Amino acid sequence: MRLSQLFTKTVKDAPAEETARSAQLLIRAGYIHKEMAGAYDYLPLGLLVLENIKAIVRTEMNKLGANEILMTSLQSEELWRQTDRWDDQKVDVWFKSALKNGTPVGFGWSHEEPIAVMMKNYISSYRDLPMALYQFQTKLRNELRAKSGIMRGREFLMKDLYAFSSTPEELQTFYDKVSDAYLRVFTKVGLGDDTYLTYASGGAFTQFSHEFQTVTAVGEDTIYVNRARKLGVNREVYTDEALTQLGLKREELEEVRAAEVGNIFNFGTTKSEQLGVYYTDQSGQQKPVYLSSYGIGISRLMGVIAEHYADAKGLVWPEAVAPAQVYLVRLGTQSEVINQADSLYHDLTQLGVPVLYDDRDARPGEKFADADLLGIPHRVVVSDKTAAAGTYEWKQRTAEKSELIHKNKLLKILAGSD
Amino acid sequence: MRLSQLFTKTVKDAPAEETARSAQLLIRAGYIHKEMAGAYDYLPLGLLVLENIKAIVRTEMNKLGANEILMTSLQSEELWRQTDRWDDQKVDVWFKSALKNGTPVGFGWSHEEPIAVMMKNYISSYRDLPMALYQFQTKLRNELRAKSGIMRGREFLMKDLYAFSSTPEELQTFYDKVSDAYLRVFTKVGLGDDTYLTYASGGAFTQFSHEFQTVTAVGEDTIYVNRARKLGVNREVYTDEALTQLGLKREELEEVRAAEVGNIFNFGTTKSEQLGVYYTDQSGQQKPVYLSSYGIGISRLMGVIAEHYADAKGLVWPEAVAPAQVYLVRLGTQSEVINQADSLYHDLTQLGVPVLYDDRDARPGEKFADADLLGIPHRVVVSDKTAAAGTYEWKQRTAEKSELIHKNKLLKILAGSD
Repeated sequence: MRLSQLFTKTVKDAPAEETARSAQLLIRAGYIHKEMAGAYDYLPLGLLVLENIKAIVRTEMNKLGANEILMTSLQSEELWRQTDRWDDQKVDVWFKSALKNGTPVGFGWSHEEPIAVMMKNYISSYRDLPMALYQFQTKLRNELRAKSGIMRGREFLMKDLYAFSSTPEELQTFYDKVSDAYLRVFTKVGLGDDTYLTYASGGAFTQFSHEFQTVTAVGEDTIYVNRARKLGVNREVYTDEALTQLGLKREELEEVRAAEVGNIFNFGTTKSEQLGVYYTDQSGQQKPVYLSSYGIGISRLMGVIAEHYADAKGLVWPEAVAPAQVYLVRLGTQSEVINQADSLYHDLTQLGVPVLYDDRDARPGEKFADADLLGIPHRVVVSDKTAAAGTYEWKQRTAEKSELIHKNKLLKILAGSD
Repeated sequence: MRLSQLFTKTVKDAPAEETARSAQLLIRAGYIHKEMAGAYDYLPLGLLVLENIKAIVRTEMNKLGANEILMTSLQSEELWRQTDRWDDQKVDVWFKSALKNGTPVGFGWSHEEPIAVMMKNYISSYRDLPMALYQFQTKLRNELRAKSGIMRGREFLMKDLYAFSSTPEELQTFYDKVSDAYLRVFTKVGLGDDTYLTYASGGAFTQFSHEFQTVTAVGEDTIYVNRARKLGVNREVYTDEALTQLGLKREELEEVRAAEVGNIFNFGTTKSEQLGVYYTDQSGQQKPVYLSSYGIGISRLMGVIAEHYADAKGLVWPEAVAPAQVYLVRLGTQSEVINQADSLYHDLTQLGVPVLYDDRDARPGEKFADADLLGIPHRVVVSDKTAAAGTYEWKQRTAEKSELIHKNKLLKILAGSD
């Protein structure tokens, strides 16, 4: 993409009330725009990052054999009353409104209830199980406070996965597979080293549930991690009794701030019994279906990655999620320079390497500062000097110095191609 | 995709209160599920159709040089009061709610206001114009009635495009380009022959505005078309004065029912003046920006296509939007049959041809009925007969009879490959 054809520009200052550093940088770099606290628009480069994260997650969901769907935001009171999750006393994040005829409606903050009811159309026998469905859907949650940028939104993109199982064992097998898939996702997006499978309290069905927490100074949670065993416990589970059950000792645990990037819930058969989701087993008996749900906050993950990697100069995207692999800086307007830059842009594009081509009429210092702020993994500079020498000035975003290299080597680095 | 791995099944009956034929068929075929009147979930095959339509529209938007973004659903009262579009008296489709601190919020039914305000960050000079942005975003509209299935949703997917221009001429040039792009979209999705550029009343800035209307018996609008000139006028414009201005005669116009699949609005400079969106022209003067917006209802379009092509046996998808190109029916469980079917499934998948592989243990009649109901363009049957003869039984969805053909010919038909 040519920067001359992109409407966003970097800006010097983020809104004064924006206190989250990741949001400040994302706003300054033109990735997002703030509509109100906790609600952000995704601009072209921000949308590309979101789509890259979605693609990584989608691959792992499909490997699990899950089917992709898209549920509505609009929710019916009647349905959610059946599981006692309509009242604001029970669930304090509902946004609610009403149809013209006065019928109350809510806006989905999660989808266990509607998906379970829908599945009554499709689950009848044990042969229909196990079955898993997922979606990328915009959740609306009326959070009291929203001061962490896109790390805690009132409106945010979530991947939610719902599994329907015939037995607790079948549920557990899937649960473990999702847990592995989640760890692969966090590794792929560049957070593997700092993301901990974390024990949380389990509710009615299991002693413990699990969260995935990424250690970050700006996280909203406090957790206790055992770095060697790559495990954590959250505050609820930081009790002598629970630690003993988990075989963990206080002295091996380190208190850290963390952001919850994924969660797993086991609802057992409670919701199915409330909503009437039954299947016929091999002996002809009616049995309630086991339900589990699995979330990853896609836009939150983008915020955590931004926060995790940013440095004093700006954003630093891992290659797997970067909106482009190369920031191509053209310095000067001599025809040789334009030709060398255009030709590299063309070749990289042909090879499938996404390039942000800074073809603007701007000062070198501005282009370099923008390259750093935008956080594209590789920077390539074309100037009268490089055009004359037939070389390219290449630098990784996190490197101190650039190198002058020939095109073959450059293409090998950027596209794995000679 | 193997049907044995798809959770949806065809069902005999749609909900009794569902009166729209397209919605009945889409529900029976397992493409959508109804949450409430005007709000539908998209199941795997339905989501594929939506994504195919989106891809066609996205290609045309990118050709216009428009940048893709994603705006929030949450909207601030303060912003929409500035253009007098907050009050329910002025805009009667708002869903509204409130933050925990009592601040009212609305849910976006269109996005001219927030996008114009956002663009104040990015438009300063004439050099920043023209500029166009688009999104695929879920709109919420509190419609009084919603009885047309996905053809009129309270929650629906829309492609909305917003253009910012420095002069009326620049706006008109872009407007004409979008009009051409829209006609290409409707042609590509299979509605070209029955979609009419239709004159509507123009509001404050232009004598006429334009809609794109597809002739269909279940459309909610009445329009008057000149089939030879491929033009229409809507009811507002069906007056002697307007017809004279357009050079149309009543006797050349035919009254038909139609569904509005696209629209174009010219807001002139009114919104920019209300919201303070100015640019500096070449002489250094501050001038208001010209705003136009362009919508296509993506999920509505899916409903109109379904309605338009359906026959007595079920859905009939044009190839460009079909969730798969081939419905592969395997009859029997002999190893030769399984091998022939698996091998064709493998080869087509390798060639990039999406296949729905009916590998279920079901009666032939059920498989054939499902193939028809689902509306996949090509049906291929593999049986002991075909396995023995080394042929395949191929039939187009709309053909009366099937043909026995060899693999080379079949691959040529389905993949353009020998």
